[in-house]
Amino acid sequence: MPRNPFRESSKRSTTALSRGRIFPPPPTSRPEDAVSADEWGFADTSFTVNAEGAITVTGTRYPGLSGEVLPNLLPWFRTVIGIDFPIEDEDNGSYPPQVPGPRAAPAFLAAINTVLAADQITTLSEVRLRHGHGHTVSEINAVKTSGFLRVPDYVVYPSDETQVAGLVRAAGETGVVLMPYGGGTNVTEALRCLPCEERPIVSVDMSRMNRIEWIDPVNRMAKIQAGATGRLIQSQLAEYGLTMGHEPDSVELSTLGGWIATNASGMKKNQYGNIEDILLDVTVISAAGKLERAQVVPRESIGLDPKVWMIGSEGSLGIVTTAVVKLFPVPEEQRYGSIIFKTFEEGLAFMYELAQEERPPASVRLVDNLQFQFGQALKPAARGARRIKSKVEKWLVTGPLGFDPEKMVAVTLVFEGTRDDVEQQEKRVYELAARHAGRKGGVENGKRGYMLTFGIAYIRDFVLRHHILGESFETSVPWSQAQELIDRVKRRIYEAHDERKLPGRPFVSCRVTQLYETGCCVYFYMAFYSKGVRDPVGDYHEIETEARKEVIAAGGSISHHHGVGKLRLPFVKDIMSPAMVDWRNRMKKALDPQGIFAAQLPLGDHQQNPPPR
Amino acid sequence: MPRNPFRESSKRSTTALSRGRIFPPPPTSRPEDAVSADEWGFADTSFTVNAEGAITVTGTRYPGLSGEVLPNLLPWFRTVIGIDFPIEDEDNGSYPPQVPGPRAAPAFLAAINTVLAADQITTLSEVRLRHGHGHTVSEINAVKTSGFLRVPDYVVYPSDETQVAGLVRAAGETGVVLMPYGGGTNVTEALRCLPCEERPIVSVDMSRMNRIEWIDPVNRMAKIQAGATGRLIQSQLAEYGLTMGHEPDSVELSTLGGWIATNASGMKKNQYGNIEDILLDVTVISAAGKLERAQVVPRESIGLDPKVWMIGSEGSLGIVTTAVVKLFPVPEEQRYGSIIFKTFEEGLAFMYELAQEERPPASVRLVDNLQFQFGQALKPAARGARRIKSKVEKWLVTGPLGFDPEKMVAVTLVFEGTRDDVEQQEKRVYELAARHAGRKGGVENGKRGYMLTFGIAYIRDFVLRHHILGESFETSVPWSQAQELIDRVKRRIYEAHDERKLPGRPFVSCRVTQLYETGCCVYFYMAFYSKGVRDPVGDYHEIETEARKEVIAAGGSISHHHGVGKLRLPFVKDIMSPAMVDWRNRMKKALDPQGIFAAQLPLGDHQQNPPPR
Repeated sequence: MPRNPFRESSKRSTTALSRGRIFPPPPTSRPEDAVSADEWGFADTSFTVNAEGAITVTGTRYPGLSGEVLPNLLPWFRTVIGIDFPIEDEDNGSYPPQVPGPRAAPAFLAAINTVLAADQITTLSEVRLRHGHGHTVSEINAVKTSGFLRVPDYVVYPSDETQVAGLVRAAGETGVVLMPYGGGTNVTEALRCLPCEERPIVSVDMSRMNRIEWIDPVNRMAKIQAGATGRLIQSQLAEYGLTMGHEPDSVELSTLGGWIATNASGMKKNQYGNIEDILLDVTVISAAGKLERAQVVPRESIGLDPKVWMIGSEGSLGIVTTAVVKLFPVPEEQRYGSIIFKTFEEGLAFMYELAQEERPPASVRLVDNLQFQFGQALKPAARGARRIKSKVEKWLVTGPLGFDPEKMVAVTLVFEGTRDDVEQQEKRVYELAARHAGRKGGVENGKRGYMLTFGIAYIRDFVLRHHILGESFETSVPWSQAQELIDRVKRRIYEAHDERKLPGRPFVSCRVTQLYETGCCVYFYMAFYSKGVRDPVGDYHEIETEARKEVIAAGGSISHHHGVGKLRLPFVKDIMSPAMVDWRNRMKKALDPQGIFAAQLPLGDHQQNPPPR
Repeated sequence: MPRNPFRESSKRSTTALSRGRIFPPPPTSRPEDAVSADEWGFADTSFTVNAEGAITVTGTRYPGLSGEVLPNLLPWFRTVIGIDFPIEDEDNGSYPPQVPGPRAAPAFLAAINTVLAADQITTLSEVRLRHGHGHTVSEINAVKTSGFLRVPDYVVYPSDETQVAGLVRAAGETGVVLMPYGGGTNVTEALRCLPCEERPIVSVDMSRMNRIEWIDPVNRMAKIQAGATGRLIQSQLAEYGLTMGHEPDSVELSTLGGWIATNASGMKKNQYGNIEDILLDVTVISAAGKLERAQVVPRESIGLDPKVWMIGSEGSLGIVTTAVVKLFPVPEEQRYGSIIFKTFEEGLAFMYELAQEERPPASVRLVDNLQFQFGQALKPAARGARRIKSKVEKWLVTGPLGFDPEKMVAVTLVFEGTRDDVEQQEKRVYELAARHAGRKGGVENGKRGYMLTFGIAYIRDFVLRHHILGESFETSVPWSQAQELIDRVKRRIYEAHDERKLPGRPFVSCRVTQLYETGCCVYFYMAFYSKGVRDPVGDYHEIETEARKEVIAAGGSISHHHGVGKLRLPFVKDIMSPAMVDWRNRMKKALDPQGIFAAQLPLGDHQQNPPPR
């Protein structure tokens, strides 16, 4: 053995692994991807009523929905809510509402004069309005009617990290509040501006920081700017056969920075993990300066780790500018599937068993009977052979097989992996389903179920035009408490609807959207007809609050992935001890002593200043 | 559809899932599990020299090692370090060393008088000594020679959360420092007491808080007290067919609280995850009071989340009293395996490919040639048929198959899962190995490799008695930089050994112990003969520091799972921007303004007061 084996070779070792990084071109924005000003999603897509009085969907974006006539939807929905509302009674609101003028901020504007170009700052009313809300029913109602008492005074569009740093510095020096803005898709009132905020509010729109800075295919990592939307990330990575695998329901519009800030969960987390599993590194502009790391490693133990403090920070600690995330190869095979069960209890028992398996399919979702019916009601007018096939299938299921259309439920599945792997997964899943008296419901139904995730947000805005207020809320809960939680929430919503003597019946439906060994995520939809009601938004908020109390009493979380924002802040004290709340406030104060990042106030302050309704 | 379907049934829903919790009895401590006072591990196990001058292992604890004679170890080790040291030249040190007397703390003692019973507090010198160190070479050397300038002044043994709260309150009121103590197995000088600390130091030994409070088999969770060792957790859970799946190399002795505090990684993380994946909830006694949650959920989005701040907090924010962790069924099948490769590069390429697979085996470890040789040298004297078989195998491999004993390396494997699953895993792994010119190395070698993990810490103490200083250090690194990092570290250690004109040759060996899609954990062993050297511990520290610089220059982390402690604190500024370091210090100050939990000082303070050598 030589005394020093390294003396001999001075050259750096090279292996097959040391190949280089890819630097993708900047993404190009497509005009057809313009978004609506006052409603969810892309401007090309909307649920409308055709000349025959049936519901249709505009555009071509969503196969199975776009361009289709949906003859069953309206009659079904009228039955469910118990109101035979006239379809011609449509109220499109009065967008844009009155928007308060921008507060003067001469010192701030002077300070950023050298940081931003003229086209990187605006005071346009409609732009400021849009940056002051997410998509809660209360916010969308306000957008279409009376507007807000307070919206951001300025919207700025930094295009690099230096500009973000300049903004933060200027804000600190001149006493201005910054609120980072990603896709504007939150449902937590995170962006809502509190009228009690005396300082000028500046919305920092991250949309110009939407590049993939590099892709490292060997180490399966990419560094991506925080303003990149899921849509852009997916399409650019796919060009190199890669994916981040992170698909929240809002993936088309929400951003990487937003996912980190809200501790987001993707539909396919069984395969790729949630955001905390995917995130390797993060760069942040904070009040203390730029947080960054010298290297990115797969996993480490470094004592107190500011990276993880940013996950779920909801804009309160600083502005995420870039992140390094894990990549995965685009799967060789992707298959959809579905299973029907006679009752929700059977479906839930199947979900529980599946969660105990080592690797459930990428996505598994159980919808309750009402949502199963909803899916059926959303089916386009069947034509020709498809119509006959569909009728026969329906008869088979509800006839000899004994499935009750008023009780049956469905599980939708997405399998991803190698071909072999997907086949094995399918085999295991359908065998397990059979043991729970489940029956294959077909690939097409599975695919539809998955696609409807994207469509349903548009429906909310459609029904709102017809005086129906609707929204979702979600929680996570251990398996043993899931059924009770669902029952209690549904029951409480019925009761609260009764107590308020609201017209018709509430629409209350749920699905189990994520499996863990220890429990699941439950996603609720709630809606009611509100024409003639004095304060429907107030009623909605009160009923949702009642429902949330039931969630917590039944052992559920405040939120599985939507976050806290301002909407759920009052519940934080119900799930954490006072010392834990105190820690959050101390942390916020220590890291942002001036309160530059005031998107989410500390709980103590908030309790003195409840959010406006 | 009835107006309110819940009106009819007022009884709570019951499903097959709502079964109860198990409350296991408290664990019983076995006298045979007594630990050594001045060396690693259990008192029944030690490497010693028999009458014939060969190395043997005492006790019966480790099959394949305990009770065996190891005839090849001494000759091999002498060759490797290039010193034909006489085995009779043994220095057992002069344990116990001088221990400084306890500082007076009358106010604290008066304050805890009503909190703890008399048998829950001690000033015994040897107990205080043990609570003031981990297992770095510097610390163990000090234990056996000159001792420490500063050790804890008092050791307390709380038996419940109320007592911990009483201790923290008393410490805050009377100006005392608390250092939580778990298994005392750290290798980061986390427990080392700084002489500059003027206040009395109290070590909070958590060993009496070692219960599993409950097991929830339905939701696969358990609430466990922080002082429970891995050994106790494993054996108690196994009675119910369950496991936490978390097996750091120190699992026999280290504790749940320590795993959380150090952000620990288990050998089988591919199957069960690292501690951050397993931890669901944590209860902490902090300077601000008790941090606890109203419910445990599988995953949630609650804004700033103090739970994750505790992971890697290294005793600096508070004392973890209990945690809720995920459980897994004890796998139906567990199989060992091994693969040999002709070169490290081939082995590393195999590891990389395997990491890209969706689910690698529970544990996969690649040892370099020196460590492979080490494993061979540790084999007991072969007898009879085993001897012949072993000789034939050896001839086959190094003869016709062309494996060079001075170059070949090995991968050890642990497969866990259902029988089918394990068989599929084995098939995939061995097929992949064949594509990299790897050959099956046998089940027995795999099992030995895994078991040696437990034995190797004892060897360190054995060689120390023979003037050989040795220790491990670890890092994590992206795949593409792994080979370069390993080469640079080994080269630098040889150079540094040369520069210091130390006797013989250094022992430098590494293994890749964890796979991630994005990179791996690399674990180094370093040792050298030190007889006649003026300041061997100082040399060791300097060489290790040089090696660590190479690690960081090659893109490696400060630590994959050992943590920072006081030993690696000076490197934090090399991997984090000043603002990030500032955040850590602000956070520590905000959550522990009096510095009650001073186990790890903020970086700024530390730089003014380097740790004693």
